[in-house]
Amino acid sequence: MKLYNYWRSSASWRVRIALAYKNIPYEYVAVNIAPTQKAQNTPEYQKLNPMQQVPTLVLDDGRQLAQSMAILEYLEETVPRPSLLPADPYLRARARQLAELVNAGIQPFQNTPTIAHISALGGDAKEFVRGFIARGLDALTASAEPTAATFLVGDAPSFADVCLVPQLNAARRFDLDVASWPLLARVEQACMRLPSFQGAHADRQPDAEGAKK
Amino acid sequence: MKLYNYWRSSASWRVRIALAYKNIPYEYVAVNIAPTQKAQNTPEYQKLNPMQQVPTLVLDDGRQLAQSMAILEYLEETVPRPSLLPADPYLRARARQLAELVNAGIQPFQNTPTIAHISALGGDAKEFVRGFIARGLDALTASAEPTAATFLVGDAPSFADVCLVPQLNAARRFDLDVASWPLLARVEQACMRLPSFQGAHADRQPDAEGAKK
Repeated sequence: MKLYNYWRSSASWRVRIALAYKNIPYEYVAVNIAPTQKAQNTPEYQKLNPMQQVPTLVLDDGRQLAQSMAILEYLEETVPRPSLLPADPYLRARARQLAELVNAGIQPFQNTPTIAHISALGGDAKEFVRGFIARGLDALTASAEPTAATFLVGDAPSFADVCLVPQLNAARRFDLDVASWPLLARVEQACMRLPSFQGAHADRQPDAEGAKK
Repeated sequence: MKLYNYWRSSASWRVRIALAYKNIPYEYVAVNIAPTQKAQNTPEYQKLNPMQQVPTLVLDDGRQLAQSMAILEYLEETVPRPSLLPADPYLRARARQLAELVNAGIQPFQNTPTIAHISALGGDAKEFVRGFIARGLDALTASAEPTAATFLVGDAPSFADVCLVPQLNAARRFDLDVASWPLLARVEQACMRLPSFQGAHADRQPDAEGAKK
């Protein structure tokens, strides 16, 4: 498989965690979505991903998949062990609920096109994003409380944790103090003890700014 | 089950379609999220849904689920027939990809808190939303082309169609001409021939403006 992605993109990062956790080898293809480069807007990439977003997973037979949550579900169905969802149907739904709170409730407001729009309106884009992240992390904490143990849902990592770790990194980029959400910060620490989460970290990717190649 | 929801909320509407398609009876609990009412911000509702969004599904044993995509997956796992996902793993992923393109790629930009923020910045909120919807529907068309038949993925409705129908309704509310996306408009017509999609329509709900009670 080939993963078209960008080191700092949180949606890319989620897929890297899942691939690593499930021990699925892949080729890393960097797509530089930095505002000065916009490699996602080239006609070639747009054919792979009409939404002009990362990540895109290209399967061995050349077929393509986009949208990180759809890719996570695909990996879970095709490589079920080790699993990133609990066995119990209700807990599976709770893991997905927490993941979607990040995916649809926070991340869209911090991505590059949104920030460009807010700035074009003369708004303080950073403050706009910080508001959405803080509101989201408050709700994520309250929503996780009934199920949290070592991880957000019980004692094994799930889609929820896969979404949490990149989201907290984004919070720091926008100068929020993650210690304000102690439950989330504690779970992040548990995640970062796992080699799969370590290897998927933005700063460890070949296209990372300042990365040692 | 009880579905806390709002007639015009597209995330609520998705869940209503799935419940109807799977013949699952439920109690309709209206939550008036209109900007003049904001019933989702009451402490009582916030306990059910810390993100202060609709829908929330309350199961028979009182446990709660939020986030429409997580609820769709839960319904699919617990009431698998009739299914709202294809059998083939790749096509399942494509159905989810199209659904997520709407869920995370369009809908967050048209919901009430976003519009309030853009207006507060002095921006033309309607134009902001129209831009995101149009860009998203262009990408949805291109992404659906490889799989579309009667529905967005083959000849049976899936999560993708469940998300499409409320999204096209939202496009019309923002004065976009859905005929600009002929593939999507054609699939919407196919959906609206199904009783489950008809019964879930916003205008048919008890809290709809101008609804005949």
